[in-house]
Amino acid sequence: MHLAKITNLLLFAFTFATPLFIQAQAQAQIQQEHPNLIMTKAGVEKLRQNLGKVPLFDKSLQSVKQQVDAEIALGIDTPIPKDFSGGYTHQRHKLNFQVAQKAGELYQILQDDKYAKYIRDMLFQYEAMYQDLPVHPQTRSYARGKLFWQCLNDSNWLVYMSQAYDAIYDTLSVEERAKLENNLFRPFADFISIGNPQFYNRIHNHSTWGNAAVGMIALVMNDEELLQRALYGIEDDGLELDLKDNDGGFIKVAGQKAGFLANLEEPFSPDGYFTEGPYYQRYAMYPFLIFGLAAHHVKPELQVFEHKDNVLLKAVDALLNLTDADGKFFPLNDGQKGMSYYSPELVTAVDIAYHYGSQDPKLLSIVEKQALVLLNESGLSAAIGVRDGKTQPFAKKSINLSDGPDGKQGGVAILRYGNEDLSLVFKYAAQGLSHGHYDKLSYSLYNKGDEVLQDYGLARFVNIEQKGGGNYLSENKTWAKQTIAHNTLTQNETSHFNGEYETASQYHSDLYLYDDSNKDLQVVSATESNAYPGTAMHRTMAMIKPKNFEKPFVLDILKVSSQTKHQYDLPFYFMGQVMKMNFTYDSPSSLSPLGKDQGYQHLYVEGKGKPSDNTTQFSWLGNGTFYTLTTATDSNDELLLTRLGANDPEFNLRRDAALMIRRKNAGDTVFASVVEPHGSYNLVSELSVNSNSSIKELQVVHDDANYTAIAIKDVKGTTSLFVLANKANSTTQQHKLKINGKYYQWTGAYHFTDS
Amino acid sequence: MHLAKITNLLLFAFTFATPLFIQAQAQAQIQQEHPNLIMTKAGVEKLRQNLGKVPLFDKSLQSVKQQVDAEIALGIDTPIPKDFSGGYTHQRHKLNFQVAQKAGELYQILQDDKYAKYIRDMLFQYEAMYQDLPVHPQTRSYARGKLFWQCLNDSNWLVYMSQAYDAIYDTLSVEERAKLENNLFRPFADFISIGNPQFYNRIHNHSTWGNAAVGMIALVMNDEELLQRALYGIEDDGLELDLKDNDGGFIKVAGQKAGFLANLEEPFSPDGYFTEGPYYQRYAMYPFLIFGLAAHHVKPELQVFEHKDNVLLKAVDALLNLTDADGKFFPLNDGQKGMSYYSPELVTAVDIAYHYGSQDPKLLSIVEKQALVLLNESGLSAAIGVRDGKTQPFAKKSINLSDGPDGKQGGVAILRYGNEDLSLVFKYAAQGLSHGHYDKLSYSLYNKGDEVLQDYGLARFVNIEQKGGGNYLSENKTWAKQTIAHNTLTQNETSHFNGEYETASQYHSDLYLYDDSNKDLQVVSATESNAYPGTAMHRTMAMIKPKNFEKPFVLDILKVSSQTKHQYDLPFYFMGQVMKMNFTYDSPSSLSPLGKDQGYQHLYVEGKGKPSDNTTQFSWLGNGTFYTLTTATDSNDELLLTRLGANDPEFNLRRDAALMIRRKNAGDTVFASVVEPHGSYNLVSELSVNSNSSIKELQVVHDDANYTAIAIKDVKGTTSLFVLANKANSTTQQHKLKINGKYYQWTGAYHFTDS
Repeated sequence: MHLAKITNLLLFAFTFATPLFIQAQAQAQIQQEHPNLIMTKAGVEKLRQNLGKVPLFDKSLQSVKQQVDAEIALGIDTPIPKDFSGGYTHQRHKLNFQVAQKAGELYQILQDDKYAKYIRDMLFQYEAMYQDLPVHPQTRSYARGKLFWQCLNDSNWLVYMSQAYDAIYDTLSVEERAKLENNLFRPFADFISIGNPQFYNRIHNHSTWGNAAVGMIALVMNDEELLQRALYGIEDDGLELDLKDNDGGFIKVAGQKAGFLANLEEPFSPDGYFTEGPYYQRYAMYPFLIFGLAAHHVKPELQVFEHKDNVLLKAVDALLNLTDADGKFFPLNDGQKGMSYYSPELVTAVDIAYHYGSQDPKLLSIVEKQALVLLNESGLSAAIGVRDGKTQPFAKKSINLSDGPDGKQGGVAILRYGNEDLSLVFKYAAQGLSHGHYDKLSYSLYNKGDEVLQDYGLARFVNIEQKGGGNYLSENKTWAKQTIAHNTLTQNETSHFNGEYETASQYHSDLYLYDDSNKDLQVVSATESNAYPGTAMHRTMAMIKPKNFEKPFVLDILKVSSQTKHQYDLPFYFMGQVMKMNFTYDSPSSLSPLGKDQGYQHLYVEGKGKPSDNTTQFSWLGNGTFYTLTTATDSNDELLLTRLGANDPEFNLRRDAALMIRRKNAGDTVFASVVEPHGSYNLVSELSVNSNSSIKELQVVHDDANYTAIAIKDVKGTTSLFVLANKANSTTQQHKLKINGKYYQWTGAYHFTDS
Repeated sequence: MHLAKITNLLLFAFTFATPLFIQAQAQAQIQQEHPNLIMTKAGVEKLRQNLGKVPLFDKSLQSVKQQVDAEIALGIDTPIPKDFSGGYTHQRHKLNFQVAQKAGELYQILQDDKYAKYIRDMLFQYEAMYQDLPVHPQTRSYARGKLFWQCLNDSNWLVYMSQAYDAIYDTLSVEERAKLENNLFRPFADFISIGNPQFYNRIHNHSTWGNAAVGMIALVMNDEELLQRALYGIEDDGLELDLKDNDGGFIKVAGQKAGFLANLEEPFSPDGYFTEGPYYQRYAMYPFLIFGLAAHHVKPELQVFEHKDNVLLKAVDALLNLTDADGKFFPLNDGQKGMSYYSPELVTAVDIAYHYGSQDPKLLSIVEKQALVLLNESGLSAAIGVRDGKTQPFAKKSINLSDGPDGKQGGVAILRYGNEDLSLVFKYAAQGLSHGHYDKLSYSLYNKGDEVLQDYGLARFVNIEQKGGGNYLSENKTWAKQTIAHNTLTQNETSHFNGEYETASQYHSDLYLYDDSNKDLQVVSATESNAYPGTAMHRTMAMIKPKNFEKPFVLDILKVSSQTKHQYDLPFYFMGQVMKMNFTYDSPSSLSPLGKDQGYQHLYVEGKGKPSDNTTQFSWLGNGTFYTLTTATDSNDELLLTRLGANDPEFNLRRDAALMIRRKNAGDTVFASVVEPHGSYNLVSELSVNSNSSIKELQVVHDDANYTAIAIKDVKGTTSLFVLANKANSTTQQHKLKINGKYYQWTGAYHFTDS
């Protein structure tokens, strides 16, 4: 059934059903004290007592006060909804709920009636308009909201406004509350839930927001029916199984649970990794933690924070670990680059995790960087920790995060060297729901906060009206999600799972081994056998600091096995200025696209060559560091220098470059490469240091079903050897292998020797 | 005569002449005390007395000590010269003279013999190798050195080594000094001067280094003959008039003076602007100031600092004003982007200008940013100023710097708004010697340290061996110097002066008016009548903050007059992500170069369209700020979206974009545009603010020989008007003009009204 059709049908059904739900407010309410949601009476007392005593808290209070006072001076505007996310009406309604939530905090802390009045006036303006408000005029969403173009944003509104309402609850008369609850909050909660089950009843960050919104207002209003709906979803949602949303994600699969607790159960792995990736984890953390905290206060018996072995608090730690040295999230799957732990959601997450977790002093170093705390008990607690000098550095280490509800659907490994001097992000995860990319066994590489080999991220300019209304651009699908947009293997110019979400969602890669016990020799290895039926991929990434090298390098072994012949393309999306290469190539006088679809239509070919040697080298300079890719090539390989930007009439894509190894007519093969940072260049001293690779030769010296061995010879003649047992990942098994006439013996799945 | 031929001839002549000059050392020497060059006995005493008392000086001392100690531990290496600027032998010899100079300072301050020994050993290694050393094996330079591929770098060596020698002079025996002077220093000085008059006897930064090198060693050795040669050049250099160097610069023109004082006279304008541009001014400042200081100490009667009304000290101020908000030099002419006032040359310049100038407390704010001072009296003085809290901010204002020895060869104007929120760099200068670009009346625009409309800079990777040996790349000539690479007018796809240096060097643009008296309405205007014979250009740039605008904008009026018809191309090299435009264009399926030569061969056409309206608008997002170009277009104009990178097989060029207005078959015409910064976008808050232009319409409402008027209508309907009197730049003349039936009256060359 077509989505727009079912949406209309649901809306139709809802229109008639509405009066019934509104009447549900008649049920008995037990008197509660307010605020009780995020702030509590006792907590507020503590905040007031500490005013002027905790610098970071005071500074945060002043900053919020300044912003809210400026908004109050501007006056309240609740325009008729009209725009997409970049437009005025969207921005205004968004700012309204954000400012109202903050005004609520200020009212509680400063006891200045102007803040209560501001919220009350705003709420009654919404109350006056809401009942007659049609669904939003923009039709793109599978679940259109009323204030916003999608229910997701309406849910944001309710999550924040619930807090504002809670803050001024005691200042309102019984009649005023009844008016707000009957005309605004209950119909609002019903609309985003029963009115839009295709939005509300999923396992998806959208639903998390919806569930939290309904749950938050339920807790303020003490409405048990809404609370049950928040926690467990809508029992009979009437949704069919073949529906998809406008991002292409499934709305319902067989046996699917719903509601907040199911959303907490499903997308988080036991390690706290969120299957959509860090960008969306950041977005989803807010409703998870805020509703978790509200439940902690009002319904402690639900034990939301303790759910699934404290997964919510673990998730904060996982999320912080999914950042580069500057705190920017790795853009796995759909992720806008630049988003970081400086975002308001992470201020919330870190403060709450500090206070309600184990008061981990390492979190305080993030708090110090954020230089802002929440205006509630957790923020005060963090600010006191900072004031009292408890801060310890949050030194990120290598980490392996499992994916899947049970932690058995692959994962993401991050190998780090030193003080994040080199960070490798290796993805062997599940599809990641509708925001997933088709990039099994792909990786990206960072030098501190600089990308060395990039993950493209998403093709979208979030909230920028001029670029497709701030929504996903068509290039997200035609480029960003495609396999060729990533540093992994594309077979026969076709994306993994043929780019089919239904298929991709059934599979995940599998961990072969992970070992970060020796900082100078860290290894992660994973396999993928479903992306291309009949073709098995086994990729092993090692971060190695050999004695004879200035800096660590990354060894990348991609073993491909197939009984039939294919064309394999392996790109390296290097970031920086091309320095030199040891192969020759033709430069076309005009640029044409490399292919017709699956992302290839967006790539120009700026150069096409052949290896001049069995060891191909390619160097670039990125932000003051030289890098060399050294890779074992076959004389029949093609070397393509590509540039993004073909078939991009609206300039939605960046003009980024790659070196691509194309191996034609190959069945079983190994791509073995080293990515090596070396030396430096400084634009002020103009001094170029160690600008040449230390590697002379890289060879696959052994490859069969059981073992693959790579020899790396440096410029001074020393040869290192890395051997992997392809089929025995036990750490205790003993191996013996003869390579070039010499016997090697070792214990465990891999062996490295650099002398 | 061919250059290589004359160079060989000169070398031949020199080989026979050498013994004569070596014997010149026999002349009588009056005893001098040492050190007396940059350090003095009294100065060193003062440094020692202040040790431990001046934090920034102590820190600088520690930092230098650490570096020198590490080098001493490594041991001395003086390899046989072999490489270009990026290679090992080049880098090693360069490091040698830098470290030796520093070791000299340490020896004087710390009185530790190991530093004297290090210098002595190094000097004797050079002494042992120098006499038999052939000219450098790399043949690219018009003046090959011995230690380095060009005499320029040999001169650098001598400027630094003279200081090292001076520092340990008293530790050497008379015999040791005689050996060094006879076998190393005098032959060295002779080789770079009499041996290479084509290098030494020019008006050029090369010669400045050569002159300073000879002068420095002359002052240490108390050699009057060499000193005269340094100050006044070689009297009879035997050079012909038609010679050029390998950058295409003239070696000798008729009536040319030579020597240090002539080089101080010619390239600096009375305002302290150096005609080659800030990047080379930075480079040249070091020998100018260091030899100036040495002369100040040893030959105060020469009054080098006082020469030409203190031009050397003025030049430091001019240079600091030629930077963006981050301290990076504007890349006028050949300039590598990223070079800044953090460079060692500027540490030298600022410390010396502070101490030997008027102790301007504003210079101390630059000293604080540099966080490093010289290990001599001027460094101590600056560090004491900082310690004593004398620092005042160096608030850069709008400034107009004249070009030419007498200040009558055009100039460079910088209009600034606020705290460098917007900085316009308008170039109406002379050619700028061999490093000049063919870009009359071009401009670049900055928002703090971010480029809004860029000047490309040079096509070179200084000292990076992999990229053409670190030297100028052929693309510097085929692209970077060409007119089309700049934000100015190209006629008939031909560069200004047809790209001919000989012609270009004869002319300069002329100032029409400059007025920065009202910060909300600053205007600079200049004319150019020689770049295209028969075509006159008059460009007026105004930085205006109208009442009804959030931020200031730049109004750009380029009036072109020609009795014949031409094709005019006016590009805007915007920096950032395309947002939207109000015209339609075709996107080619494959990219081809726009033209055949004069830079056009390097531009791909990504889009080709026609104006949809008389007011064309084009918006982009650059580093968090939105910008819109609004320009008056004709329905016959072509709008080209270009991308750099065609015919660039070695990836020497950046893939930068431009919007180009092409007006065909035009004689007299006006290009009138506004570049308008507005709003903001933040990647962490994902909030997009004021992303649309405030301008609705821009029209040329009047244009004749006497007056040009531009009307700017904002989105709320208010119209502003800017009128320029094209032929009367008097500030007192009264004007009256009827535009669209309304009379306007004003006094002075321009008039603006925004109500």
